[in-house]
Amino acid sequence: MQSGRKQPRNGNPGELALLKQIRARAEQLSHGIAHGGLRLGIGDDCALLRIGAGEELAVTTDLSISGRHFRMDWQTPESIGHRTLARGLSDLAAMGARPVAAFLSLGIPKELVQNAKGREPWPGERLWLDRFFDGFLALASALQTPVAGGDLAESPLAVADIVLVGAVRRGKVLLRSGARPGDLLYVTGTLGGAAAGLARLAQLAAKANAARPGSKRIVPLRIPGKLKSLLAPHLDPQPRIAQGLRLAQRGLASAAIDLSDGLSSDLAHLCEESHVAAEVDAAALPIHSGATLQQALHGGEDYELLFTASPQAHVPRRIAGVSVTRIGRILRPRQGRPAVALVTVNGTRPLAPQGWEHFS
Amino acid sequence: MQSGRKQPRNGNPGELALLKQIRARAEQLSHGIAHGGLRLGIGDDCALLRIGAGEELAVTTDLSISGRHFRMDWQTPESIGHRTLARGLSDLAAMGARPVAAFLSLGIPKELVQNAKGREPWPGERLWLDRFFDGFLALASALQTPVAGGDLAESPLAVADIVLVGAVRRGKVLLRSGARPGDLLYVTGTLGGAAAGLARLAQLAAKANAARPGSKRIVPLRIPGKLKSLLAPHLDPQPRIAQGLRLAQRGLASAAIDLSDGLSSDLAHLCEESHVAAEVDAAALPIHSGATLQQALHGGEDYELLFTASPQAHVPRRIAGVSVTRIGRILRPRQGRPAVALVTVNGTRPLAPQGWEHFS
Repeated sequence: MQSGRKQPRNGNPGELALLKQIRARAEQLSHGIAHGGLRLGIGDDCALLRIGAGEELAVTTDLSISGRHFRMDWQTPESIGHRTLARGLSDLAAMGARPVAAFLSLGIPKELVQNAKGREPWPGERLWLDRFFDGFLALASALQTPVAGGDLAESPLAVADIVLVGAVRRGKVLLRSGARPGDLLYVTGTLGGAAAGLARLAQLAAKANAARPGSKRIVPLRIPGKLKSLLAPHLDPQPRIAQGLRLAQRGLASAAIDLSDGLSSDLAHLCEESHVAAEVDAAALPIHSGATLQQALHGGEDYELLFTASPQAHVPRRIAGVSVTRIGRILRPRQGRPAVALVTVNGTRPLAPQGWEHFS
Repeated sequence: MQSGRKQPRNGNPGELALLKQIRARAEQLSHGIAHGGLRLGIGDDCALLRIGAGEELAVTTDLSISGRHFRMDWQTPESIGHRTLARGLSDLAAMGARPVAAFLSLGIPKELVQNAKGREPWPGERLWLDRFFDGFLALASALQTPVAGGDLAESPLAVADIVLVGAVRRGKVLLRSGARPGDLLYVTGTLGGAAAGLARLAQLAAKANAARPGSKRIVPLRIPGKLKSLLAPHLDPQPRIAQGLRLAQRGLASAAIDLSDGLSSDLAHLCEESHVAAEVDAAALPIHSGATLQQALHGGEDYELLFTASPQAHVPRRIAGVSVTRIGRILRPRQGRPAVALVTVNGTRPLAPQGWEHFS
């Protein structure tokens, strides 16, 4: 945890005190994690990690920006913390890697480390930053991921960059590029739940904002208890670490990707890297209760695994408590054939990627 | 290179086209790097890296935010790219690690991937983003660091998070915590040059802004050719990778840290982690030509190495072309003794950390 250009000291606890609190919480978490290669965590110029002799490293980074990847006025601080870590862990899951360590770079406005009135916090008071780490560390603990370092800076705009380092047995890694014509296409869990939850959240936020016109202060949305399970796929997505590990260790999958941008986009990525085409059966899709077909096809952030397997592979119906559904097949790419097609009772039509893209 | 919540497509090249260009440049660079453990770079959910059986991993992340860690209106895009990577490499140098791979998460405003008039770039036109990568990749190439991945997002505020993964022989790593009473204190290169350059740059910027009052457009400052060498320690700091490697391999240093926050702050960090005190001889400091004693003591971002060595160690006067200067000694901590003291002809006085701190 280093920081570069900083503000002058004025006797307040400031950054160093915050870093000490975060370090203490991260170290407490690490003590509870049995296996793992963390040799030296926060406190030096770098963290030190060890992995097994027969393993290689998987590394991923994901940048989240306030107003684009998360909404301070819609999502609870706990959910923003959870989702930040979930994005990175889901990339490890897609490679069949076990988590070795997480690193978090966080830039946040000053008011998020103070209470609403701008004064220093009372002892034990839950600040935005504390609640962010509640969500972040609860998921880290659940998926046995030590927090080994990162960076903290004051920023007018909240930004979070998550780095995950994982380890995977040599020769066992799941790649996007391994799908072959004839392979079958599978997905874990259900689809569209995150997009349906996001749509519901947007309605709630519109209602809440109508109730306090003109207010510019960031107030996290209050989420009624009865809506929590409906919104869970959006607020608390579950990275499929255990499922990815099982697929990799048993050699079941020929290729895999996590569903972060949405099925239509992520399947297009997998097909491009594997130089194949694919067909999805609309009727086979495990659509999340309350979600639409469009949300299941194009909604992002479900963080399920999309994978391919040879027809000879014995793919179980459930892996580590999560359902696995066959949703289509891999085809040879051919002139005039769409890279990805959707098969419905009305025939077959091209399924264009409708994820989202920056700078366009 | 994954991105999450994105803007709708509208037929422009957008993010995917930019990612393809960056990927092509990163791959071209990697082909020129002889040794290294990069097995799979940009294009999958994670990058894959291998290290030697007798090595462990060093990992560091550093977040830079526009207006705090860099200035779009003072520094050239090339310098911002160079400095972003230098911050991370310098942390590896301080551990005595060799670079294995760099990952860059970049959030930038839309206008930085378009030309000044908001239109799409002409073929071959140098955009801000292109020039940023010119500086970034030139340093990556010079220090044999493959670029293995990262993330790209549109952001109203420019932010860059750099992640470096390095490898170091087990038992050879340089830590902040290894200094012992009686050890001598050394520094590479010269001190204060970055702070002196920054002060000069601030003068230039004030003059340029006075010449175009009211303008809000970001125009990188034009830097006169004759000032380039004076400003080089600020604009193009050189991470001491070769020096850190030599110190680690030969077992010369007992502890090390890089000078990112300034000598007074970073020496205090080293003393705290080693549970020791230290004395600095003012007359021995290798002050950069044109810099003041205050800049040498407290100015950050020199990215030199500060290290300790036993009096029995044969520390050379130069390592890999860079001078090494003895500047003080490590003492036993004692009640009433300052953690860090400055020895001058007028006597010994406490040297309080005067680095900078966020949130205070």
